[in-house]
Amino acid sequence: MSRRRRKSAPIGLPPGTLLIDPEAPPPVVHFMGFGPDELEEGTVEDISVLEGLRGRWPVLWLNINGLGDEAVLRKVAEVFKLHKLALEDVVNTNQRPKVEAWPESTYIVLRSLTWGKVGEKLDHEQISLFVGPDFVLTVQERIGDPFEPVRKRIRDRRPAMVQGGPDYLGYALIDALVDGYFPVIQEFSDLLDDFEEEVDERPTRSLHTRIRTARRAHILLRRNLWPARDVLQRLQNSDLPFFSTDVQVYLRDVYDHALRVLDLVESQRDQVSGLSEAYMTVVSFRTNEVMSMLTLVGTIFMPLSFLAGIYGMNFDTASPYNLPELGFRYGYITLLSVMAVTAVAMMVYFRRRGWLGGEP
Amino acid sequence: MSRRRRKSAPIGLPPGTLLIDPEAPPPVVHFMGFGPDELEEGTVEDISVLEGLRGRWPVLWLNINGLGDEAVLRKVAEVFKLHKLALEDVVNTNQRPKVEAWPESTYIVLRSLTWGKVGEKLDHEQISLFVGPDFVLTVQERIGDPFEPVRKRIRDRRPAMVQGGPDYLGYALIDALVDGYFPVIQEFSDLLDDFEEEVDERPTRSLHTRIRTARRAHILLRRNLWPARDVLQRLQNSDLPFFSTDVQVYLRDVYDHALRVLDLVESQRDQVSGLSEAYMTVVSFRTNEVMSMLTLVGTIFMPLSFLAGIYGMNFDTASPYNLPELGFRYGYITLLSVMAVTAVAMMVYFRRRGWLGGEP
Amino acid sequence: MSRRRRKSAPIGLPPGTLLIDPEAPPPVVHFMGFGPDELEEGTVEDISVLEGLRGRWPVLWLNINGLGDEAVLRKVAEVFKLHKLALEDVVNTNQRPKVEAWPESTYIVLRSLTWGKVGEKLDHEQISLFVGPDFVLTVQERIGDPFEPVRKRIRDRRPAMVQGGPDYLGYALIDALVDGYFPVIQEFSDLLDDFEEEVDERPTRSLHTRIRTARRAHILLRRNLWPARDVLQRLQNSDLPFFSTDVQVYLRDVYDHALRVLDLVESQRDQVSGLSEAYMTVVSFRTNEVMSMLTLVGTIFMPLSFLAGIYGMNFDTASPYNLPELGFRYGYITLLSVMAVTAVAMMVYFRRRGWLGGEP
Amino acid sequence: MSRRRRKSAPIGLPPGTLLIDPEAPPPVVHFMGFGPDELEEGTVEDISVLEGLRGRWPVLWLNINGLGDEAVLRKVAEVFKLHKLALEDVVNTNQRPKVEAWPESTYIVLRSLTWGKVGEKLDHEQISLFVGPDFVLTVQERIGDPFEPVRKRIRDRRPAMVQGGPDYLGYALIDALVDGYFPVIQEFSDLLDDFEEEVDERPTRSLHTRIRTARRAHILLRRNLWPARDVLQRLQNSDLPFFSTDVQVYLRDVYDHALRVLDLVESQRDQVSGLSEAYMTVVSFRTNEVMSMLTLVGTIFMPLSFLAGIYGMNFDTASPYNLPELGFRYGYITLLSVMAVTAVAMMVYFRRRGWLGGEP
Amino acid sequence: MSRRRRKSAPIGLPPGTLLIDPEAPPPVVHFMGFGPDELEEGTVEDISVLEGLRGRWPVLWLNINGLGDEAVLRKVAEVFKLHKLALEDVVNTNQRPKVEAWPESTYIVLRSLTWGKVGEKLDHEQISLFVGPDFVLTVQERIGDPFEPVRKRIRDRRPAMVQGGPDYLGYALIDALVDGYFPVIQEFSDLLDDFEEEVDERPTRSLHTRIRTARRAHILLRRNLWPARDVLQRLQNSDLPFFSTDVQVYLRDVYDHALRVLDLVESQRDQVSGLSEAYMTVVSFRTNEVMSMLTLVGTIFMPLSFLAGIYGMNFDTASPYNLPELGFRYGYITLLSVMAVTAVAMMVYFRRRGWLGGEP
Repeated sequence: MSRRRRKSAPIGLPPGTLLIDPEAPPPVVHFMGFGPDELEEGTVEDISVLEGLRGRWPVLWLNINGLGDEAVLRKVAEVFKLHKLALEDVVNTNQRPKVEAWPESTYIVLRSLTWGKVGEKLDHEQISLFVGPDFVLTVQERIGDPFEPVRKRIRDRRPAMVQGGPDYLGYALIDALVDGYFPVIQEFSDLLDDFEEEVDERPTRSLHTRIRTARRAHILLRRNLWPARDVLQRLQNSDLPFFSTDVQVYLRDVYDHALRVLDLVESQRDQVSGLSEAYMTVVSFRTNEVMSMLTLVGTIFMPLSFLAGIYGMNFDTASPYNLPELGFRYGYITLLSVMAVTAVAMMVYFRRRGWLGGEP
Repeated sequence: MSRRRRKSAPIGLPPGTLLIDPEAPPPVVHFMGFGPDELEEGTVEDISVLEGLRGRWPVLWLNINGLGDEAVLRKVAEVFKLHKLALEDVVNTNQRPKVEAWPESTYIVLRSLTWGKVGEKLDHEQISLFVGPDFVLTVQERIGDPFEPVRKRIRDRRPAMVQGGPDYLGYALIDALVDGYFPVIQEFSDLLDDFEEEVDERPTRSLHTRIRTARRAHILLRRNLWPARDVLQRLQNSDLPFFSTDVQVYLRDVYDHALRVLDLVESQRDQVSGLSEAYMTVVSFRTNEVMSMLTLVGTIFMPLSFLAGIYGMNFDTASPYNLPELGFRYGYITLLSVMAVTAVAMMVYFRRRGWLGGEP
Repeated sequence: MSRRRRKSAPIGLPPGTLLIDPEAPPPVVHFMGFGPDELEEGTVEDISVLEGLRGRWPVLWLNINGLGDEAVLRKVAEVFKLHKLALEDVVNTNQRPKVEAWPESTYIVLRSLTWGKVGEKLDHEQISLFVGPDFVLTVQERIGDPFEPVRKRIRDRRPAMVQGGPDYLGYALIDALVDGYFPVIQEFSDLLDDFEEEVDERPTRSLHTRIRTARRAHILLRRNLWPARDVLQRLQNSDLPFFSTDVQVYLRDVYDHALRVLDLVESQRDQVSGLSEAYMTVVSFRTNEVMSMLTLVGTIFMPLSFLAGIYGMNFDTASPYNLPELGFRYGYITLLSVMAVTAVAMMVYFRRRGWLGGEP
Repeated sequence: MSRRRRKSAPIGLPPGTLLIDPEAPPPVVHFMGFGPDELEEGTVEDISVLEGLRGRWPVLWLNINGLGDEAVLRKVAEVFKLHKLALEDVVNTNQRPKVEAWPESTYIVLRSLTWGKVGEKLDHEQISLFVGPDFVLTVQERIGDPFEPVRKRIRDRRPAMVQGGPDYLGYALIDALVDGYFPVIQEFSDLLDDFEEEVDERPTRSLHTRIRTARRAHILLRRNLWPARDVLQRLQNSDLPFFSTDVQVYLRDVYDHALRVLDLVESQRDQVSGLSEAYMTVVSFRTNEVMSMLTLVGTIFMPLSFLAGIYGMNFDTASPYNLPELGFRYGYITLLSVMAVTAVAMMVYFRRRGWLGGEP
Repeated sequence: MSRRRRKSAPIGLPPGTLLIDPEAPPPVVHFMGFGPDELEEGTVEDISVLEGLRGRWPVLWLNINGLGDEAVLRKVAEVFKLHKLALEDVVNTNQRPKVEAWPESTYIVLRSLTWGKVGEKLDHEQISLFVGPDFVLTVQERIGDPFEPVRKRIRDRRPAMVQGGPDYLGYALIDALVDGYFPVIQEFSDLLDDFEEEVDERPTRSLHTRIRTARRAHILLRRNLWPARDVLQRLQNSDLPFFSTDVQVYLRDVYDHALRVLDLVESQRDQVSGLSEAYMTVVSFRTNEVMSMLTLVGTIFMPLSFLAGIYGMNFDTASPYNLPELGFRYGYITLLSVMAVTAVAMMVYFRRRGWLGGEP
């Protein structure tokens, strides 16, 4: 059972140091340039052409998948005038979701979430968005793309899309990310519903392990989503540079979605902790049932066995005081009757006290 | 046991996309136009007459039940100048309660709650209210109507009602919705009181399942009611367009009701979690009782059986050292006396330690 | 076991509707008119004289006990110019404590609390206070009066009292109400202290039921007291109409009392939940003790009984390999010795592992 | 077991009523008058000289121990112009820590805490401080004095002390009080550390009782310390009359101390509740161990005893089908072997399932 | 098991008193003076040269390790004009993290954390930073240095470093401290992951003790980190003297790191408390398993032993009513069959009720 024991970064590095993960995939750079009447897109193979792209269209969207090449990132930072601290945050992919206003662009960090295995392995990826006066720059950790629907809308030349500025594109991308949280939440909810049934019917030890794993997965989920709320609140409230008031109303809508996501996440939190508790209670209930059974059997048969033991003793029956019952004609039958009465009395007592448990 | 596994909406759709649920009922459009001295009402069969209705009376109240027809909704949006994001929220019926100020109207989302089955199935429906300069537009998901008492007041020409503007009508509708929360809370309270008794008297496993179900239902209840509080707080506090200061004082009253609702909801939350805990404790108490019984019986009869076993051994009594007691004249009687003393001593010890539990 | 299942009020009634509870007692109207040099008091039998009372003294205090007569309430509302929403709140006696500034008077709702039975039945009553420019109007649900000490102070012509305005009288009444919370809290504290002892000494099932009942009673207590804190905070902080700055300093004092009440209430909350937990732990401890006893007896006597059983077998001792021990001269004595050693070894083992529990 | 059942004060008394506790000790009045170059101190026997003391030195510090004489208090209130509400609070010694700005002085209430018995009995005493333009007045409930170190500093003519005004003296007194909280916290911490060990080693029932008592004592501790934090925050933040900005910086330091006190108190709260939980878990663990032992012994010896019982039956061996094993030459030895194999198999099974618990 | 019972400081000392711990190591004073084009460093052996160092370079960084010599500290305070309260806080090394603006420098207290033993012993050390117009002064409790990477950057003449002022150096030092928290958190996380596995596989009593110890260690961790967050928030938000706006943006970055640290710390808190709960549940589950085993064996063998006991009785078979079965030809075989059927029936019943627990 090998866990990923992350190495911490070295301490005390100068700000702006880029620690390129040697296992990070090489970047794939894709651009879309568009305006109300024009659209061009393609993959940038040679990073030196980048400079020429900026300014050719009303909106340039550059998307980078993969963080494996420092030179590419440095070049991008130069072209779009990214601050070295921002660039460092792009590369250190364990940032909290946040929004930062830099003079040349507004920098937004969000996280894309998917289940590797529902309730067990949450894959999360840092998505960096820079919204500038004439460009949007997005950087993702891995290949695999939550933004494809937005690209399709540009290609379809949806009027709002191609007439809007970079801020509208930025909104559309954030909206796609936040919408992507709903299926993640929903799959988790379905899992919890399965657990609810299983707790009642088959409270095995492995269920307990799975509930605990889900609980930890949910902690991770929450940790990634709460700060996203703050980001979206700040986006909709404040006058961030490069976001026009027209787009504000759309960001308010995304914020509403984020609130819904968090309502669900908080409900799930209550549900998960309720499940742990329920498991414990069901196990206690079963222990009670089992013990009641043992007690029933024990309290009936221990006295009876004792009686049988008495009459199995080998006292010398020459003495009239030693076990005279053994010689009685109806001794055995009498004894059996006594035993039957004792057993029945016990069972009646049990039923009266309600110790037989279970459903009546 | 088929659960409703909701499909998430597709991701990355352009804002304003209307995802009409194919199972949604077709809309029934009803209007009431009134002023201090006039009143007309009816059902709109042909949607094209809608345009002509607006402006004919001081107040036009259009109520739509059912979301199954995109054309109707688009037409309504056109006539009342609803923003496409607002219209989208009307159709996506899982909105959080909220209030949004649009230039043409104030948009309020609340939810109507009823118990499908108390403590098990909470039916909730999204109610959209638009309050404009000369109209109120309400949209409900399903047939079935929390607004009938308000209609009656209009038909009765209650002065406050027919002389008030659309904001007073809006208040009356919100008030009817919030008042509708009280019976929902009350029914749940009654259920909890039943549970309280049952926990003591019949802590069956099915009770535990029902408590857990109620707990989840309550989470849902809370999730629907908390944001309603914020909506009403904002309504009473702020200067929303289309709400006059005269109506503010009534909205303050509704806000008070909402606070009361939430006080009750929070109390119930404490009570539900107290019930889970109480169940667990009662089960533990019963286990303790049952175990005390078994221990009592076991500690009395195991030593006695052992003694009986001793005298049931077949040692060759030719040797004077082997079980000489078997040959004693009063051996059996002595043994019985020893056994009786042992048993009584045990019971006294038990009573002393208070292990016999239960009520004295 | 008949619980009071309250009926919810009908939904969608126009604001200001007075739902007179048919079981409410008829109102008893008492007035005190006073100034620095004058004092008159009496019971108002004929409601029509009410109009004449107002303005005859610097301060008129009208107290109404009982809500059973709509005409009286309407008349009072007319004379003192109460808003219809305020009047409705006077009658609907499940208001949250609150303070509302109306143009003609400041309306304060507080609740009077007493124990029907400590920890089981909390009687709570709504007290409405209107403080106007020259009057104080108090409305109580039932006969029985927390204001008698204030009346006495007026009759004694205490200078602060008779020279103060209606706001000082209002303060004195609120102070009397808040002071009345202390004995309620204190009685509950005494009950909890009793429970603490009982949990240790007699953790019966009925104790558990009483703790749970107390917990619910405490939830109710808290629900009535928390909003009172907000009311008093608002009274001492803000410039409410009809309250002079001279009286502010006294209201600050009442607010301090309310804070103390809530400190105590919060402490009790921790204590009650600690009691539930302690009960559970004590029960578990007892189960552990009982089980240790059973295990001690079982592990000692089960092996011994087995040995006795061995030598009770009827193998044909003709074969020299079958139970030769039975024929040994010291077989029995040897066996007894083996048994004694086994038993002692077991007990030593138990003591070593500390399983005998209890106090050493 | 006699608990102190406090009587609540009568309700509805006029503000400023002094309820002198008949058991309160008579006041001992001590004064120190000092300035940069002068110092006089003594005990005031005759209260009438009090008037003459004021104004004779730059700073007059009057300390009163004991609240048993109304005349003394009235006289002091007159000389230092204390408001009647403030004087009432001095006498009602269950005030919350608070700070009140009166025109003639700033009134500060704090509480002095000591353990009567650590974790069981918390002695707390109300300390009232009035800081005026040329005096500091301190009132304590009982003889016994947290202020002695401050007196020593005055007698030593520490420059900061004798050159500072009444506000500096006030600061020094408050500082001494807050410093006095640390040993109280520390002693409680030591107790908790003892409990931690004892839970593991000797989870007796009396330990549980002591943990619970400590929990209640801690609730009381918290209740006394939290408001002190607010007092000190207000002291360091706001421009209270009679406190110069020079002293503000010292009050900020005291506030830091108070924050540290509360950090510790909150940590202890977590620790105490962790202890309760740990106790419960240890008891459950022990039950599990004990039950495993019983199960081990029971599952081994019950089958074996059954086998022995079989061969102890008295079937008539004339029939060849009745217990033929009894006549076998190696019957006994075979049986013993079977028994040994069964017992070993059981133990292996137990070890495999890890039911033997405990440390490996 | 000797615990460090800290002695509380004496009460009522004058502010600015330095309580030098006699066991504190003697101070080692190291300086670095640098500017864009110059760099000098060395150890200060003779404290009197200190005065001459100040002002010789644009930035002077003085680092003191060890608090064992009052004279050195007093001299440093004199040279850098530290307030006596600040100096007192430097020496009393149990300060909360805080930031204080003094006229001559900004004083920042943070704590350096390392694990003496992960999850058991948290070593924490107070780090004091003074940032002035031309100097940075750092004081550490012990030898051992979190600042070495920063020194290296100065020696490497990194431009940002040597061109920046004291505030940039201050930022770099704080950044190094905060970065140092990550490995501490990470090691704790790894420990918790080990515990998670162990709870399932080997829930020994020592595991419980270790979980509890880790919980207490985590409380300590939190107590040291939460106030650090406030410090960094204040640093990035407010206009502290001696911090330029250029450096603000870097401090914002450090604040982000601190937020991440606290997100992790809060997640761990949930995880630790989840572990305690899981341990309890696993123990309960095991008890249930063990009891089920005992009940299975007991309910099968107690009736069977009883039957065997019956036929081991010595009733005089002369009477035809006494145990006639003993004389039957197939008596023994019939009995064995009855026993087998009983046992199988019991096991089927058990399986039906799902009492055999465990994994199927």
